[in-house]
Amino acid sequence: MTLKILTSEDLTSSLQTQVTELYKQLSEKVSQIPLETVFQQNNTTIVYAMEGTKLIGMASMGNYRVISGIKGWIEDVVVDETQRGKGIGEQLIRKLLHIAKQRNYTDVFLFTEDFRVPAIHLYKKLGFVFRDSQIYTYKVLK
Amino acid sequence: MTLKILTSEDLTSSLQTQVTELYKQLSEKVSQIPLETVFQQNNTTIVYAMEGTKLIGMASMGNYRVISGIKGWIEDVVVDETQRGKGIGEQLIRKLLHIAKQRNYTDVFLFTEDFRVPAIHLYKKLGFVFRDSQIYTYKVLK
Repeated sequence: MTLKILTSEDLTSSLQTQVTELYKQLSEKVSQIPLETVFQQNNTTIVYAMEGTKLIGMASMGNYRVISGIKGWIEDVVVDETQRGKGIGEQLIRKLLHIAKQRNYTDVFLFTEDFRVPAIHLYKKLGFVFRDSQIYTYKVLK
Repeated sequence: MTLKILTSEDLTSSLQTQVTELYKQLSEKVSQIPLETVFQQNNTTIVYAMEGTKLIGMASMGNYRVISGIKGWIEDVVVDETQRGKGIGEQLIRKLLHIAKQRNYTDVFLFTEDFRVPAIHLYKKLGFVFRDSQIYTYKVLK
């Protein structure tokens, strides 16, 4: 398995197709925007895992600066269902945390649902701490 | 009262001093980074309210693109304690939501604590919906 940071040069149509299919495993309902659109703005890091020519895992980290700090948000973590339990998710997130440190982010956040027990176990193992806050969302595109 | 989008031209040392003081009202514990550092990266919108030469309120919205969408995060909303109950927070957030729509963000998020009842009331009034997710944080700078 190889683990890489996605660059715009890596954006072949084959990879885009594989990304689209892989993310359907995260949620059939989740709408997707093309990687090309993601890369139009230069503040997201995507790491991906390949086994030969097959995409087997991916995780993204957006970031922004506000007065309270330089924040990273890990989103869209997905490992192919045939490849789970091998520590690929852990490697993806460790890579993103390493990048966050290099870039002097103050905090990295993620959100998850209660029922994702193995994921939560992993986040705690990696040093994430539960934060007693509630999220509210506003859907801009109706 | 005037409501404006903060630009780097507005960044006088007087304003920076007022921002620092105003944010102490949000939390004495919150560490702050200088506005100049915030503006080094061009993906945060800050709106601020002035009464004459006095800063009376501020709110920030960071944003990033990931495969699941173009996300805005509203952070660091603060209104001077002598000016609360006048709808200034509402105007600040409405302005940010308006900008989010103009820029085709898919979602705007914020997080808050249970005890901030008036704030939660405002968010719901503005169309925010509670999301049943939990936040985990990783402190990069120890």
